[in-house]
Amino acid sequence: MSEKKEEYTYIGKRLERVDALYKVTGEAKYLADVKSPHALVAKSLLSPHSHARIISIDTSKAEKLPGVRAVITAEDMPESPLDFYLFQAVNRSDNPPIASDKVRFIGEEVAAVAADTEDIAEEALKLIDVKYEVLDHIFDPEKTMQSGAPLLYDGVENNIAIAINREYGDVEKGFKEADYIFEDEFRTQPQHHATLEMQVCICSWDSQGSLTIRTNTQTPHLFQWMLGNVMGIPIAKIRVISPFLGGGFGARAHVVFPFQVICAVLAKKAGKPVTLEFGREEEFAHACASPPFILKVKTGVRKDGKITAKQIRIVEDCGAHMYFAGGQLNVGLHHGFIHLYKVPNISYEAYLVYTNNPMRAAAYRGFGNPQVTFAVESQMDTIAEKLGMDLQELKLKNLFEQDETSMLGWKFSSYGLPDCINKAAEASDWSRKRKERAPNRGIGMACTEHACGTKGVFGLIETSTVNMIAKEDGSFNLYTDFSEIGTGVWTVAQAIAAEVMGTRMEDIQIMAGDTAFTPFDLGSFASRGTYSLGNAVKLAATDMRNQLFEIAAEMLETGVDDLEAKKGEIYLKKSPEKKVSIAKVTDHAHFGLGKVLMSKGIWNMPAGLYDPATGCWPSPGPMTSYAFGCQIAEVEVDPETGKVKVLRVTAAHDVGFPINLTAVEGQIEGGVVMGLGYSLTENLRSEEGTVLARNFSDYFVRGALDIPEIKPIVVTTNDPYGPFGAKGVGEAVMIPTAAAIANAIYDAVGVRIKDLPMTPDKILKALKEKQKR
Amino acid sequence: MSEKKEEYTYIGKRLERVDALYKVTGEAKYLADVKSPHALVAKSLLSPHSHARIISIDTSKAEKLPGVRAVITAEDMPESPLDFYLFQAVNRSDNPPIASDKVRFIGEEVAAVAADTEDIAEEALKLIDVKYEVLDHIFDPEKTMQSGAPLLYDGVENNIAIAINREYGDVEKGFKEADYIFEDEFRTQPQHHATLEMQVCICSWDSQGSLTIRTNTQTPHLFQWMLGNVMGIPIAKIRVISPFLGGGFGARAHVVFPFQVICAVLAKKAGKPVTLEFGREEEFAHACASPPFILKVKTGVRKDGKITAKQIRIVEDCGAHMYFAGGQLNVGLHHGFIHLYKVPNISYEAYLVYTNNPMRAAAYRGFGNPQVTFAVESQMDTIAEKLGMDLQELKLKNLFEQDETSMLGWKFSSYGLPDCINKAAEASDWSRKRKERAPNRGIGMACTEHACGTKGVFGLIETSTVNMIAKEDGSFNLYTDFSEIGTGVWTVAQAIAAEVMGTRMEDIQIMAGDTAFTPFDLGSFASRGTYSLGNAVKLAATDMRNQLFEIAAEMLETGVDDLEAKKGEIYLKKSPEKKVSIAKVTDHAHFGLGKVLMSKGIWNMPAGLYDPATGCWPSPGPMTSYAFGCQIAEVEVDPETGKVKVLRVTAAHDVGFPINLTAVEGQIEGGVVMGLGYSLTENLRSEEGTVLARNFSDYFVRGALDIPEIKPIVVTTNDPYGPFGAKGVGEAVMIPTAAAIANAIYDAVGVRIKDLPMTPDKILKALKEKQKR
Repeated sequence: MSEKKEEYTYIGKRLERVDALYKVTGEAKYLADVKSPHALVAKSLLSPHSHARIISIDTSKAEKLPGVRAVITAEDMPESPLDFYLFQAVNRSDNPPIASDKVRFIGEEVAAVAADTEDIAEEALKLIDVKYEVLDHIFDPEKTMQSGAPLLYDGVENNIAIAINREYGDVEKGFKEADYIFEDEFRTQPQHHATLEMQVCICSWDSQGSLTIRTNTQTPHLFQWMLGNVMGIPIAKIRVISPFLGGGFGARAHVVFPFQVICAVLAKKAGKPVTLEFGREEEFAHACASPPFILKVKTGVRKDGKITAKQIRIVEDCGAHMYFAGGQLNVGLHHGFIHLYKVPNISYEAYLVYTNNPMRAAAYRGFGNPQVTFAVESQMDTIAEKLGMDLQELKLKNLFEQDETSMLGWKFSSYGLPDCINKAAEASDWSRKRKERAPNRGIGMACTEHACGTKGVFGLIETSTVNMIAKEDGSFNLYTDFSEIGTGVWTVAQAIAAEVMGTRMEDIQIMAGDTAFTPFDLGSFASRGTYSLGNAVKLAATDMRNQLFEIAAEMLETGVDDLEAKKGEIYLKKSPEKKVSIAKVTDHAHFGLGKVLMSKGIWNMPAGLYDPATGCWPSPGPMTSYAFGCQIAEVEVDPETGKVKVLRVTAAHDVGFPINLTAVEGQIEGGVVMGLGYSLTENLRSEEGTVLARNFSDYFVRGALDIPEIKPIVVTTNDPYGPFGAKGVGEAVMIPTAAAIANAIYDAVGVRIKDLPMTPDKILKALKEKQKR
Repeated sequence: MSEKKEEYTYIGKRLERVDALYKVTGEAKYLADVKSPHALVAKSLLSPHSHARIISIDTSKAEKLPGVRAVITAEDMPESPLDFYLFQAVNRSDNPPIASDKVRFIGEEVAAVAADTEDIAEEALKLIDVKYEVLDHIFDPEKTMQSGAPLLYDGVENNIAIAINREYGDVEKGFKEADYIFEDEFRTQPQHHATLEMQVCICSWDSQGSLTIRTNTQTPHLFQWMLGNVMGIPIAKIRVISPFLGGGFGARAHVVFPFQVICAVLAKKAGKPVTLEFGREEEFAHACASPPFILKVKTGVRKDGKITAKQIRIVEDCGAHMYFAGGQLNVGLHHGFIHLYKVPNISYEAYLVYTNNPMRAAAYRGFGNPQVTFAVESQMDTIAEKLGMDLQELKLKNLFEQDETSMLGWKFSSYGLPDCINKAAEASDWSRKRKERAPNRGIGMACTEHACGTKGVFGLIETSTVNMIAKEDGSFNLYTDFSEIGTGVWTVAQAIAAEVMGTRMEDIQIMAGDTAFTPFDLGSFASRGTYSLGNAVKLAATDMRNQLFEIAAEMLETGVDDLEAKKGEIYLKKSPEKKVSIAKVTDHAHFGLGKVLMSKGIWNMPAGLYDPATGCWPSPGPMTSYAFGCQIAEVEVDPETGKVKVLRVTAAHDVGFPINLTAVEGQIEGGVVMGLGYSLTENLRSEEGTVLARNFSDYFVRGALDIPEIKPIVVTTNDPYGPFGAKGVGEAVMIPTAAAIANAIYDAVGVRIKDLPMTPDKILKALKEKQKR
């Protein structure tokens, strides 16, 4: 493996994705393709009330219906709740896999049926007699905290699931030093993940108590672990199969959802395989979404543009169950609020509150950071205008330095944010366009700082593991827990392994998607694919390379240090004509030496970087590496209709070093598209506790024809901790889009929309109010 | 893990088999259970001639038949032949996957078809027009060697595939020292494996050239390797799935058979999954069998019973292709002939010959040793009678000593043969019964020496590999390439791992039967399951135990050496109340330390024991460990019908140390049953090149009601190389049965049958001849 980036064979090049052919030919099997025709069909009975006490459930009629094989209620469920409290602030469970005493939102599971056909299952649901005592409900996240509001849980005062506040520096002093103080309130909406594939679960048990579960999960091993805990069976007896996902974005990362436990329990009770599948309506109505935030941001700034203090108050609505919502508060605060700009005095006050809103607050690309960054970066635009300073200049004035340590002990060992800002500005002709305005056209800029990996969120660990096995002919199996959720991570693994070992990419066979053979990994989320998995692949491949070189050195009668490898051949550095193929080395190992070449790479973020003294819950600990980006949006607003036409988005992202340049650009483009939906159209609205969207006709996700020109700019910084200098890029790419659009709208027509999504009616209303003034 | 055998938790006990419940519930999926209804059906066109030149093949009509998706002939096949010449004496190929220039037996594949249905495929076969030039055939293995016999291959003189002869000591001198010289000729028959499951192959390719093949194989990794070579694709792209086999006995150990390549090529050509399945008739007609031997044995003995010299001439008929027949000559000679008794002067002359007999000479339980031992041990009975010496005494006089090195450099580091002879004699009341004869009743004795493993047969390697992965809750995955072919090997692996690690057996989940996740192993044959796999499990479990103890030592604040483990808990040896569960250790490893506990065990027979100077082809190199046994059969012969009723078989076998006592006894019983079939009924006869058996009505395999009392006696010797002192027992148990029965028949009615099987007609004929004398 060359030390020089320009001599790499694969890394940094435009690589064809290993999963591409499988997907275009339709061979990639999604779960809907592998359903057994012999499996029973499961359906859940859902709560029709936003808030009600369950008085009684009578399933006897349903059980007697011919073709019904199992009916379950809370009584049949395991006692362990589905709380990931290892990763939450509070050691409290609020998430039984099926409602027992109360229902708390419309769509919550109350009972479930497995039957021979879907029709019978539906019919059986109608025969289940549930008596409810309807209770007062509460939907407003501010009002839910007020005294007198209906309480969702006994012992949870004011419906506050989590309350945190913290101060770094002296905020009062900071505000005194400021020449201007800005206070704004922003609101974000619940955004649905809108994965094309819907949730599916297929469970089958065998007589020895082993459970095979096919389900779309981004975290097969955490899923396996948690399901083992919940069901009370040895983890080694659970096999989770989840090879290809039709999109993840966090929707499949909340480890275990109730429907999956329901499916497993039904299959156990019925003694037959059971399939539980969501339709699009169910996917909208009771699957999951990014939780909405209400954010009050206060910023003090000197005339020269230096920020002196920052304060934020966040109310996050998690609906009736916490799920991952606490973590999102956590990540949003510490990335978008604390570490995007260098601020000497900073404080926050944040609440996670329960309401009866119909939503499961799942992880979502950006994990709380899109919400916070929308607020922070919208306000920066207001500040720049007030100061009469160019937004680019204002941003550059408030950045960190590379290798500087923040108040919380975070250190950016690679720091491409200034480069991202300058390159995006240059590529979009920012300075000229910001000054010379065309009518109703505007340009806006916003930045992001985000995490690579999860350290501190999942306790102290951030683990990826890779195994490799050499075959007799110089081909290799590479085992990883990472499902292919669409990110191209298999290709990254293949490229890194091939580059390190000096073999050909096509000689690396990726083995994934089945916990039967893959080693432990946290999973595919948190921008950790290239970063964490990549590091583990590098370790495993280096281990394998060392074993190959040792045998090759004997075969070539030389020392290990004299050897180099490229494209399947190991040769002497000084006389490359002296060589042996990797195929011959592995054949000799197997049949000459009786050696089986196996290697492993276990990667965990270096421990030394975590300082518990500065880390605090809900702070994510410092990471080793961080992603940065700057996006510039150009829009045209129709003042008659309020409709925003996005003309162009220039998106510069610090990716450390790209492993697969094409895939990095694809990630940037995909992130911007998702950010555009967040900005302008997507909103999982509900009325009186009922989700309104029933299909994509009610919930507008951009298709190929709705996408403007996107200019990806890949900024390289060569991160010291990332594999080949690479960093994660999956989430950062959608975080700044909404603020960039908001700022561009303001630039175009002079109205500031602080409430996502920025729909035509809001813009029209703002334009009318502006005219009145 | 206790050092004292009596303190073991699992080893040596009667253990319930891990596969038992799967099999009694019918959950264990055999290949016939997993056939896809969407797969095409393949059928092969078979040669109707014993020997003919192929003039032309016209497939055009077949190709045009609606529903036919692919037709193949030799032209479509890969060039690489299916010869395992790595493991043969001669670097010559005689086994194309489909006949090209000539057919050499009735049943050889000439062309094949994949079609939508079986009927269409059958119809298509009729439309293939093959023009043959019929050639003279030869069926007699002695005559085939004579000049003028039709030749099967150009350049193979006298149809002799392999000829070997060798002398150790001075045989001429040895015979001169003898008081008596015995010369006898014996013949053995082709024995069919008669597995209940028939051969199945299901192939599917994907667009990236990866091949998934479901087939019943005892050697998934060698299969994968060889198929990769034959098809010219990277081995890592081949996935071989073969979890449960309905019997193996060697029938599924010839790595790759033609029908499997045919199926793969058809699937590739058709671009669809293809199933190729044998019916019982095909299974008999052109599957495989143990090859027949003609053996001339000459032995010189002194009056005191000491053998002074031994000479043998063997002609082995392999049919038209060598397959594994050379290896069987090899193993039979070196075990049954050279190393059963200590003989100072010994020589052999052996021929593997081609004929047009319809048979694929597959591996078979005992691998040539049942044939040779039948001859050697029958003659020993004749010798004892002539000397007026008890057979037991004669045998004991000619044994080796423990740790003695043979002329070929073999050393028996554990040697239970004397014990086996004495214990079997005692348990069967040999001395009394041998003297006090009841009318037409007789008792006979025969012994065996056999190999544990394959060293020297497969070059220098004898490799088993095991991987283990710890789960978060103290359960473990154990990965092995061993299919469960019925031997109980998974239970052995589970027990050894649990004993070494001090965990519970049920915490070890066996992961096997799929090369997607199992590491390299030679496979399930050659009595190597308990022995070789067991050693690899022990290594992997010791590695895992060390990792667990290291973490536990920190948790318990003590040293690793102070710890012991039992039934899932690690405790201080001196104060067992100080303890931590293995579940807590693995949980802490994953979530506290970010460590993933993975271990590997790669076992290869110690290299030092192989001495190439004394080893010679076709000699198997010395092994580390050897199996021994003595069987005593009691029979009653009906002189009117010639029918033999077996009353009892006492079978004492040196197993080193039993891992699962119940399974060892089961192996002994099963081996005896197979030996009884070999002795008395089983014979894959053919007439004019056509196999006569079409179903089990024509080929008599003993059912449960046909089985006499079998007394298994487990002799322990504590082998220094075997895991927990264990040795392999799978093959030795059937080797001596035929001679024991033959000797008992002689004892009963005074006739010596030298031609297997010993059917009533042969006995009647011999009785009549005896009366004439």
